[in-house]
Order: sequence, then structure tokens, then C-alpha cells
Amino acid sequence: MEFIINNECFNKAISEVSKAVSLKTPFPILSGIKIIANKNCLILVGSNSDIVIEKVIPLTIDGINVLEVYDTGSVVISAKYLSEIVKKLPDNIHLKVNENHLVSIKSDEIVVNIYGFNSEEYPSLPQIDEAKYIKIPSFELIEIIKQTAFAVSKSESRPVLTGVNMSFKENHLSCVATDSHRLALRELAIESNVNGSFIVPSTSLNELTKLINNEPGVIHIFVTDSYMVFKSNTISLYTRLIEGNYPNISGLLPNNLKTIITLDTNQLLRGIDRACLFASEWKNNNVHLEIKDGTKIRIFSNSSEIGKIEETQKIKAINGDTDLSISLDGSFLIDALKVIKEEEIRLSFGGSMRPVLIEPIDNSSYLHLISPVRSY
Amino acid sequence: MEFIINNECFNKAISEVSKAVSLKTPFPILSGIKIIANKNCLILVGSNSDIVIEKVIPLTIDGINVLEVYDTGSVVISAKYLSEIVKKLPDNIHLKVNENHLVSIKSDEIVVNIYGFNSEEYPSLPQIDEAKYIKIPSFELIEIIKQTAFAVSKSESRPVLTGVNMSFKENHLSCVATDSHRLALRELAIESNVNGSFIVPSTSLNELTKLINNEPGVIHIFVTDSYMVFKSNTISLYTRLIEGNYPNISGLLPNNLKTIITLDTNQLLRGIDRACLFASEWKNNNVHLEIKDGTKIRIFSNSSEIGKIEETQKIKAINGDTDLSISLDGSFLIDALKVIKEEEIRLSFGGSMRPVLIEPIDNSSYLHLISPVRSY
Repeated sequence: MEFIINNECFNKAISEVSKAVSLKTPFPILSGIKIIANKNCLILVGSNSDIVIEKVIPLTIDGINVLEVYDTGSVVISAKYLSEIVKKLPDNIHLKVNENHLVSIKSDEIVVNIYGFNSEEYPSLPQIDEAKYIKIPSFELIEIIKQTAFAVSKSESRPVLTGVNMSFKENHLSCVATDSHRLALRELAIESNVNGSFIVPSTSLNELTKLINNEPGVIHIFVTDSYMVFKSNTISLYTRLIEGNYPNISGLLPNNLKTIITLDTNQLLRGIDRACLFASEWKNNNVHLEIKDGTKIRIFSNSSEIGKIEETQKIKAINGDTDLSISLDGSFLIDALKVIKEEEIRLSFGGSMRPVLIEPIDNSSYLHLISPVRSY
Repeated sequence: MEFIINNECFNKAISEVSKAVSLKTPFPILSGIKIIANKNCLILVGSNSDIVIEKVIPLTIDGINVLEVYDTGSVVISAKYLSEIVKKLPDNIHLKVNENHLVSIKSDEIVVNIYGFNSEEYPSLPQIDEAKYIKIPSFELIEIIKQTAFAVSKSESRPVLTGVNMSFKENHLSCVATDSHRLALRELAIESNVNGSFIVPSTSLNELTKLINNEPGVIHIFVTDSYMVFKSNTISLYTRLIEGNYPNISGLLPNNLKTIITLDTNQLLRGIDRACLFASEWKNNNVHLEIKDGTKIRIFSNSSEIGKIEETQKIKAINGDTDLSISLDGSFLIDALKVIKEEEIRLSFGGSMRPVLIEPIDNSSYLHLISPVRSY
């Protein structure tokens, strides 16, 4: 195996696949990156027990030669050392592997020798059935992940709740995340011939958003027995699926609403953020909301030892009962408000011990639900 | 005590004095910032056992009113909460303290109440004798700190070595730092009527460089019994001095030099940085230098388990013995090379077991000395 590659291009690919490589693996070979030199491209693979990232480097990028392959083959090299070496080499990189997996890397007058692993011992990738597919523009995929993944459970006690439940029906996708105290739901029309629900680890989805953030165009999604695969032109992320049954959420949405108010999204976000200053003494970051004579909402929190904070904001519209007092976990409200792009939101209350429904005005494709907390 | 202050200006001052406030102090009052409202200015003070930072906010800055004092007085407020509150308030800040040290902070429709401390319990500042002074442009002070402070000892076993020894003689300053394996020396002509040597904690000097980084103009230095004070127009840093006798370094400078070579500073820095990749297996980051036939220097390191790296660089000039092999702690060499601004350096060797002298070409005001390490 022997090739010469543009430094910058190699560096970027290594840093992308490195995101899947765990330094704390019991299997030394998994701390490495698998490099496969084909006649017309170089493939880099990094993996851990949850995700696999595969990157393809073609011979030319935007008409510029970035890669010349002299001899095909494959090897696995320590991700940590490969990445540090390549970052520090000044020029094009000439990489060559001998039959004993000893790797020689040259650049200008610098010679590095590093022991590689036999690539045959590296685990193989899951097989993809390309007949069943889903197509989704990358910016929309990123958006739905950002609008839901934050709401998953941080605790491993119910593993299904640590993932986002992605349900595909003919040309329709619905994503749900909940930790049983709050819930985020987002729906989207897509191009798909897949039917079924899959629980995808939120950690994999967060990694995916970073990876495809600069990739315009369409992401293809494939599902295998225990993996979901996200594929752009040059990069693929395989994620393990979480096994188990996701709870049915249709019964959770409130139907007996007593008070519905309209507020400015950003102003409310900043007010709740301030109120959280003194809420940390409480287990649930208790922030209190109170409607005053139907025109204003009072936001306050207090800490017996430090002090208290309060402010009032204008209610833009109100329907129903004008008398309400409720305590919420301020950090949950902040998380939900941060992912709402619309300028105005509707808060719907069923009473001080019922979940609050948060929806953007003029957009019915997503909603958030937050359970109240006891204020004593 | 009552005043109205520009939000941004108050925020900046709080963040500056907060740098001296330790969150982990056994005295609750020291976790606070002392605020003194005088008729014509506001003074903020933060301190811990090593340093005190004092900031003065005048009534106007660049002709713009930033402060109105309605009632003079003083109070101490938790640095953590004050800083978080002020950051999150949208407009000018109206601060008022009642006789029970209860602080009320208002901004727009937001009201915060926070319990303050009695400012009389806050420790008082050391007295300054303004007759004995030192004047130094802030950019030069920052430079000499950067060129020496990195070389102090990280270990507390000999406390004097954790400081930079600043020796003042009539209009002359010399700064020395050493951890007994390496030494950095910088000399400078200054305006001063002080004679004496003072050991200043490197941590205080590093804090000082951040504080005066955006302060053009001259820094005045005063020395009290156990403090050194650095004063710009609006900000002062008081640092505790380290007691004890600093070692005499005049005997350390080598006089029997066998080989003197000239190299490109930046190229050597990058080469040593690369060689350090495989040096971490060694206790001292062993990097080996070897002069080859008087024209090139070979830089290499190896790790039995991972691999090896080597490169050669051109020697620009050589004097004396053309045969030399030496092992150094690569990280020490990197630290020294990073603070040399000149394009070329002179390395002077007294043999493979003698300290290496590193000096910039055409600048005799500073030097570095590094002891070799055993390579087996």
C-alpha cells in the first residue's frame, strides 16, 4: 500500500473519522483508523461500539489532484498518533506500508515510522440494503435533531428514553424525545419508502449534526437490522439502534386547556434565564410564573440564602382563565425556547399541576411539553 | 449607597476584579467584591490571599456619562452572583443598599434583591509609599513576563523558585526565573529610583499580563513591605511577595563553549514540536540533537512501542567542534523558542552533559539555559 495525499485534505478526513474512535477501548485495534487505498479513492474508517464513521477521499476535489495511489491495500494506524503527526507535517504526505504493517510517513525532510495493525482484524461494516431509503436535506435533518434530541433522558435507567424515536410512514417523519418530565415532538414531510419506528441514540445524532453541518445537499438514510446509516456524498455515519419499545405518547398531549397565552419567544427566554440565577438551590431549578390581571406575566425565583429576582412581561394575547400560578423547571423551559425559531409562542395551561404545552405561533410542525414541579 | 451605572462598563469592571476572587475561600466575605461609591467614582476591589485587584470607574469615560452617584457608601456583594446578574440585565443598572446591607438591583422591569456583607469586615489594602517608584511601558512589562515566567518551578518544594526574581538597580531591571533544570533571563532599561530584589509569584504576573493587555501607556510599580503593586490609570494589582533568598545565578552561565551554531528559530521550534510526538514515553520528553558533518542538525525521538520520527535541518553557521550529540527535554526547548521573537538563534554547547545556552541573534537582552537529560 502506497499513496501521496494532500496534507490538509488528509488532516480533515482524519479529524472527521476520529470522532468515532474511542481512546478508552479494551481492543487496541479500535483505537486506530482503518485506511483503505483503492485505485480511485482512499477510505478512512473510525468506530466504537455505538457508531462508525466512514469517509471517502476521491483522487480530485474541485478539479484539483489531492491523491495519487501507487499501490492498493489497507492498514490500521493509531488515531491519536496519526492525527498528531499529520497535523504537524508541513507538506504533501507520502505514506507507505510494508508487509509487517510498519508504516512510513514522509513529508519534506521528515520521516516518521509507526507500527500499524493488520487491517483484517478490524470489524467489518454492516451491510446496507439500498432498495429501502429515506432522503432528507441535510439542513432539515440537523434542524429536527436540534429541536428534539436535547429532551432525551440523561439517565440510563430506561435506555429507550436516551434515544430519539424516529417514526417513518410513507413520505412522513415524526421525531419524539422525552425524559418523562418533558417532551419534544417534530414532524416533517420527506421522501421515503420506509415504514417503521427506530430509536436512535441521541449521542449519535449530535455527532451527526457536527459531521454534516458543512455538507449541503441531501442525506440518504438506510436502516439495517440493528443500525441506521446516514450517508452524504463523501461521509457516512452508522449508528447502533436502541432495542425496546418506545412509550406511546398520544395520551400525553393535554386536551383540557384552561388558559392560553401568547408571548415573545426571545423575551421569555431571557427572563427565564435570569430567573434561573436564584433557582439552583431547588432540585428542579424552580422558576415561578404567575398571570397578573390578564395583561402581564410575573416571572420570579428566590433562594432563601442569597436573594430573589422578579420581572414582569407583557402578555400579547390571552384566552380562558386569567388567573394562574405555576412552577416549572427553568432549565427545561430554556432548552425548549432555544430551539424555537418563531418570534412568538403560545403557552397552554391545563392548571397549575398539569403539563404546559409550548408551540410556536404559525407553525404546527413541532411542540414541547413540560411537567410542572411542586413549589414547596 | 445608591448609584446608576452603565451596564457594559460595570460588567467589565466586575469581570476584571473577579479574577482575584477565589470561590473556595474559608472567609465568605472574600468570595465577594467590595464596591465603594465615592462622589466622583466607583471603586471595585476583589482579593484572595495572593493578589488584590482594584478598579476605578470614573463618572465619564471618553466624554460619555457612565456613572451617577446619588449616595456614597460601600458594600460587599457575592462576586459570583453579582457577575451573573449584571451580565443578564438588559439596561443601565440602578443599585441601592439599605442599612441592613440588603442590595436592590433594578434594570428595566427587573428587580433583584441580594444579601450583601458589611464592607467594614473586608480586609484593608496595603499602604503605598509613592516616593519610591518604577515606571515601565505596559507592553514591555508584558513582554518580560512572557519571556521569563514560564521557566519558574511548578513544584512548591522550593517556594522561591515558583516566583520571578525582579532585581532593580538605578534605571535597570533584570528578571530571572528557573526551576533548576532551565533558566530564563531578561534585562531591560527602565525609569526607577528603587534598589532591591523581589521574588514575585509567577501566577500573579500571569494574571497581570491579562489585566493590562489592553491598557496602553505606562505601568507604575511600587513596593511595600510584603507586596508589589502594579498600577495603570484605572486598575491596580497588588501581589504578595515570596519571602526567602533567591539563588545566585551568575555561576550557572557556561564559559567553556565547544560548539556554537546558528539556526532558524521557527523551523527549529516546529521540528522540536514534531519530535516531541514520540518523546512522551520518556520522563523528560527526551529529544535528541546530533550535528552531522558540520552542515546539518538531525532532530529525532523514538518510542519503543509506537515508532520513531526524525528530520534534518540546515545549520546556518557553525563555530568550534563539528561533532556533537545531546538529549534535551523537548518541552523546555519549545517553551524557550516560543518567546524568542528574533528570526535566528544561537545555540551554544559545552559538551553533551553541559547546559545549552540559547540566545537570539542581534539581541543581548535575554537568554535561556537548558540542562541536558540522560538519553539512556
